[in-house]
Amino acid sequence: MARDPKSKDSKSEAPAKALALTSGEPAGIGPDIALAAWLRRGEFDLPPFYLLGDRAFFAERAKILGLSVELADATPEGASAAFAKALPVVATGEIATARPGHPDQTSATAALASIRWAVDHVRTGRAGAVVTNPIAKSVLYRAGFRHPGHTEFLAELAADGGSAPQPVMMLWSPALAVVPVTIHLSLREALAQLSTELIVTTARIAVADLKAHFGLARPRLAVSGLNPHAGEDGSLGNEDIDIVAPAVEALRKDGIDAEGPLPADTMFHAAARKSYDCAICMYHDQALIPIKTIAFDDAVNVTLGLPFIRTSPDHGTAFDIAGTGKANPSSLAAALRLAARMAATKPA
Amino acid sequence: MARDPKSKDSKSEAPAKALALTSGEPAGIGPDIALAAWLRRGEFDLPPFYLLGDRAFFAERAKILGLSVELADATPEGASAAFAKALPVVATGEIATARPGHPDQTSATAALASIRWAVDHVRTGRAGAVVTNPIAKSVLYRAGFRHPGHTEFLAELAADGGSAPQPVMMLWSPALAVVPVTIHLSLREALAQLSTELIVTTARIAVADLKAHFGLARPRLAVSGLNPHAGEDGSLGNEDIDIVAPAVEALRKDGIDAEGPLPADTMFHAAARKSYDCAICMYHDQALIPIKTIAFDDAVNVTLGLPFIRTSPDHGTAFDIAGTGKANPSSLAAALRLAARMAATKPA
Repeated sequence: MARDPKSKDSKSEAPAKALALTSGEPAGIGPDIALAAWLRRGEFDLPPFYLLGDRAFFAERAKILGLSVELADATPEGASAAFAKALPVVATGEIATARPGHPDQTSATAALASIRWAVDHVRTGRAGAVVTNPIAKSVLYRAGFRHPGHTEFLAELAADGGSAPQPVMMLWSPALAVVPVTIHLSLREALAQLSTELIVTTARIAVADLKAHFGLARPRLAVSGLNPHAGEDGSLGNEDIDIVAPAVEALRKDGIDAEGPLPADTMFHAAARKSYDCAICMYHDQALIPIKTIAFDDAVNVTLGLPFIRTSPDHGTAFDIAGTGKANPSSLAAALRLAARMAATKPA
Repeated sequence: MARDPKSKDSKSEAPAKALALTSGEPAGIGPDIALAAWLRRGEFDLPPFYLLGDRAFFAERAKILGLSVELADATPEGASAAFAKALPVVATGEIATARPGHPDQTSATAALASIRWAVDHVRTGRAGAVVTNPIAKSVLYRAGFRHPGHTEFLAELAADGGSAPQPVMMLWSPALAVVPVTIHLSLREALAQLSTELIVTTARIAVADLKAHFGLARPRLAVSGLNPHAGEDGSLGNEDIDIVAPAVEALRKDGIDAEGPLPADTMFHAAARKSYDCAICMYHDQALIPIKTIAFDDAVNVTLGLPFIRTSPDHGTAFDIAGTGKANPSSLAAALRLAARMAATKPA
């Protein structure tokens, strides 16, 4: 993304609200990277955040990891002041007992409470944004969780009894931002579900959030074609003519700066990236291959379309390395930084 | 690719045969970049090559471009000696008269003669390798050409009356080499045509050429999954279990060092690339997005599976900039360098 929110000067504004960081699955690396990130808060240039969960559990994890982390009981409002000297922990009332790599009967309850409180805090103006650590869907499913994933759960919490907003996933890094129109579907199913309407709806949500939280008055979208060479005038498939091109046209009629369908293979090199703020891609790998190729450690997952800011690190629970100290807090650090910047950026 | 043929020392060997460079479509940028590359032969560290075609036509193009290029009538055998002082031209007997950007009735004949002679020279041991400039399929079709493309035509010339070898396309750069199993097909058609057999055949050809021309005794292949997250144990499509995994198994049974199916989005970052020599990808954009993202200007198209070495720049005729001097000779230069290195590399 050419116009990086990093360039916004937020220092002159009122002290920012702290960010609400969920614990994620207690048996996963969420607690590890939260502790490690706080310890390296200076190096990572982190904004104040607080961790939601069970303080005794985090203290035990710090011990397992051999990390000397001061933990402080805090309220969301008191977190910013405490942050320099201790990692503020806001109690959710749920305890956790899982050992690293081994989810137990407290895992689902603890993880979900953490998410619920984070959303409550941001919706009531007590936190600046929600940053979520990874959860384990299979653990939640066994405990009766019925949402397709983390993001859909957040959307339902955001609905507050009304109809849930449509969340849109963006992967963001300073060098590139991408939005996949279809996400966790087989390639065959992605082909079946891709429609002009889905592209248009997704792109509109992206544009609204890029205006609201990235300071872009007129975000520039690059819309990829579905087929190789964007279908080469129909000789390599008709979807680019029948589905993608009409979506670009509809967006332009709305006054949105959208270009496409563009051949996906030539969209992502350094010179090409300068011509747009966000790439709208037709399927998972088309979006995620380029960003993970060039920004593997610091890509941030941003959920657009929610009535609050939510970012998360771009990796999973990594049960195999939980509690070992091997988990890399870089992506979480990038998620925290981006959330703070988005919160501090005035709508364009 | 971790083990770059660049590291091979070919200087101690007998003087290498010159490379046969085709003119490509005369109205395209092929002649432009051939002339520009020769002029910058020192800067680009180019091996001796000769251009196949009509010397008067190349002289005229040099004039249009304002380039002062000495052209010398040559034989393939005499080209290396002439190369330092002049661009050797080996006559094909076909004239060309097309103006830049405007193919005419001489275009198809001149382009095809150039390819035929190049193949003849390499097959009879007079040239070290074939490097081809871009052709315009539509122009050739109007003239009665019946092959799906450049590569298939080369395969038929290689067949010499027998059955044509199966050509396999590799995109190569010092940082990454990729082979798409399906290529110029719509995504829908690629899904339909992908098979275990096609993956295995393609990978075997890649392995044979990586041994023969890249000095790799045991090439390491990374085989991508088709679906996001390589299908996530079947929850995102069954093709990775039903089609890709059996192919990897078959290759391993053959003693080939193959890993996969791997999630495509996490295969291509710098650290991941160190673990393999060549990525075998399921469809066009999965292979071409990562290499064009990181190596846009110097990716080289290599045709594997032919009984001779063939490389080409990774771009088209670019009619819109032919004759203007705007065409970038970098990819052609990379194609010439790689062809020379492949020709000089002893089979592992």
